[in-house]
Amino acid sequence: MKNVKAEIVAVGTELLLGQIANTNAQWISDELASIGMNVHHHAVVGDNLKRVENQFRVSQERSDVIIITGGLGPTEDDLTREAFQEITRTPIIEHKPSMDKIESFFEERKIAMTPNNRKQARVFAGSDVIENQTGMAPGMMISHEGRTWIFLPGVPREMKRMMRDSVLPYFKKQHGAGSVIKSVMLRFIGIGESTLEHELSDLIKQQTNPTIAPLAQNEGVAIRLTAKADSDDEAAAIINRAKKEILKRTGHYYYGDDDETLTEKVFNLMQKNNLTIGAAESLTGGQFTDKLTSVPGASKVCNGSIVCYDAKVKENVLRVSSDIIKQQGTVSEACALAMAENVRSLLDADIGISFTGVAGPESSEGQSPGTVFIAVHDQSGKRLAEKFNFQGDRQAIRRRTVLKGYELLFKLLN
Amino acid sequence: MKNVKAEIVAVGTELLLGQIANTNAQWISDELASIGMNVHHHAVVGDNLKRVENQFRVSQERSDVIIITGGLGPTEDDLTREAFQEITRTPIIEHKPSMDKIESFFEERKIAMTPNNRKQARVFAGSDVIENQTGMAPGMMISHEGRTWIFLPGVPREMKRMMRDSVLPYFKKQHGAGSVIKSVMLRFIGIGESTLEHELSDLIKQQTNPTIAPLAQNEGVAIRLTAKADSDDEAAAIINRAKKEILKRTGHYYYGDDDETLTEKVFNLMQKNNLTIGAAESLTGGQFTDKLTSVPGASKVCNGSIVCYDAKVKENVLRVSSDIIKQQGTVSEACALAMAENVRSLLDADIGISFTGVAGPESSEGQSPGTVFIAVHDQSGKRLAEKFNFQGDRQAIRRRTVLKGYELLFKLLN
Repeated sequence: MKNVKAEIVAVGTELLLGQIANTNAQWISDELASIGMNVHHHAVVGDNLKRVENQFRVSQERSDVIIITGGLGPTEDDLTREAFQEITRTPIIEHKPSMDKIESFFEERKIAMTPNNRKQARVFAGSDVIENQTGMAPGMMISHEGRTWIFLPGVPREMKRMMRDSVLPYFKKQHGAGSVIKSVMLRFIGIGESTLEHELSDLIKQQTNPTIAPLAQNEGVAIRLTAKADSDDEAAAIINRAKKEILKRTGHYYYGDDDETLTEKVFNLMQKNNLTIGAAESLTGGQFTDKLTSVPGASKVCNGSIVCYDAKVKENVLRVSSDIIKQQGTVSEACALAMAENVRSLLDADIGISFTGVAGPESSEGQSPGTVFIAVHDQSGKRLAEKFNFQGDRQAIRRRTVLKGYELLFKLLN
Repeated sequence: MKNVKAEIVAVGTELLLGQIANTNAQWISDELASIGMNVHHHAVVGDNLKRVENQFRVSQERSDVIIITGGLGPTEDDLTREAFQEITRTPIIEHKPSMDKIESFFEERKIAMTPNNRKQARVFAGSDVIENQTGMAPGMMISHEGRTWIFLPGVPREMKRMMRDSVLPYFKKQHGAGSVIKSVMLRFIGIGESTLEHELSDLIKQQTNPTIAPLAQNEGVAIRLTAKADSDDEAAAIINRAKKEILKRTGHYYYGDDDETLTEKVFNLMQKNNLTIGAAESLTGGQFTDKLTSVPGASKVCNGSIVCYDAKVKENVLRVSSDIIKQQGTVSEACALAMAENVRSLLDADIGISFTGVAGPESSEGQSPGTVFIAVHDQSGKRLAEKFNFQGDRQAIRRRTVLKGYELLFKLLN
């Protein structure tokens, strides 16, 4: 879409009161950037009919594509439809498939449907309705005086699903022949953003096609390669050449492309090798296993775990010897190793992994928050234990511990 | 500042590319709300002179106070000053104290100052200069045709310091005495947004002070009450009167105010009653326990859990009888009850809770995704088990199962 000017408008007073940040606009912008569309404006306006109307007028004036998030719900505060109708005179009709879905939702739950729920099934006449797979109010796409308007719910999960299933494919099709944009994310673990950038600095400086952008991620770092070409094949070839050169230098830290998570990578490596795992989780409280079981088909790999938050559970269920607990404490290499070994045999798994440490905010057993031991015990009798000092608050320490566990397994299995 | 309309404009292409979220706007909005100023718009515009000018014209037209973040740095991309000059013809001069500071910064570090750094000391003639305590470019406040313009750096640390030291005190002084705004969120579980709104529709229709806004949340729903008054006490009294009336009708579903989560509420109820809990988690894979252990001090309440993802673990570790597993399956009321009872005794807890079901995407044991049993077994011998049919994908089903577990505990303990 050459030189298309896109704009993202969020409707919702909670944003103007500072209760949440406009992460929807960030996410959509990132997606549009990856297919080469230019976002020129973000706007946020509250749940006030007159002001939403005025914002929509400004947007209609200056942008080719206007993406609206929010204001489609059942309450009287939800005014997006009304504002667009006010300035365009587009009739609003009830969308039967959406209404049927809403009614059956309430029927199945045996809850009386209140009348305001009907509102969520109302759509603009002549619009392309986007089905809501994860909620009630459908999205809509409609043209108005040369502009494309796209209406999406404000709930991030619903919005993202509609963007992925309907809106982004539509934009890609609009591209037409001739100009293809292809983007790939290369994902790395165990290397920092600045080191990665340093290793690739000459490539990054020379970049034109593909562009090479290092990005810090929640899990490790990533490099986004974006190629423009006349065909899919050509764009793929441009990306593959650059990818090869990058992995020649940093392949040691590379674990996957695009949406692949480190958890999925570890899952796939275990499945390929026919291995099962059991975890003993203390400070991580089940988070390691929660992540693993979020992968469909997890039962092939994950036997389960013992969350031994209480020292008594370490002793009575995991059978860590009371000598270790008394003399070295639960936050110790010896305890971590015993946990890994014993959970492996208790859960009859090929690999046992354990996490013990201090999440904070208080110190524990004289050790400061962030002190963490992770141990692994595998079917060949190999044992390893590492000590870490993680920074951050309680949630960050727990999150980093889990991520490090997956990093250790990745190194072990890769 | 009665009925002052404020607007926050961020200048920076990185926001439009989705590289960062506009958390500056969130932070500023939250601060302004706390002193009773109404923010009517957020806007984001890229580093492009023409577009920044146009955005500034729109803002000058519609808002009384315009706060700009970003675009004051040393590079050619930093265009905030130029855009404002272009539309207002305000002369720009060098601010000697700022220039001295920049020069001594480079001298102290024995780095040659590149010429573009002079740009950072340039300010509007006639503006109130806000010293930058933590960086280089100063901020500015200036009036233009009845509007107040405030220019701040985009670096959050620098922006926040200037807001706290200079801008917020200035606004409070403008206020004069009186006029306080106070906002409270009331949180509910087990009732839908539309039903809640229906129950309170007359109150919502009559609302003036406080305003009453229902909001869908990740965990249940919430109602935001916002009061304006001449004093803190008066605002609190207005909110309390409305809260009382709302809870008279819907108090059964109410669990807490403001940032309190349902997990924290359950944690607090258990702590108050000196109760401990152990969980047996199948489809939820540790997520229930992960949430509970995210609360600081979790060890007082949470003994641990058995994540029995594999049927063998249900049988061998949790000692669910093989008869139950063979005849009724692992996705059954009998299995859920046995899991809850056995995990309670195995982990020596007061309450045992269990989760078993089908997360999908595939069916399991002839049951379709979303079929879930949750059981609770408590110290008095009370047992309960409920069957649910949750909608959504694998992650949604697991998330809803965990939330429902907390809802059941809340009902049990409240």
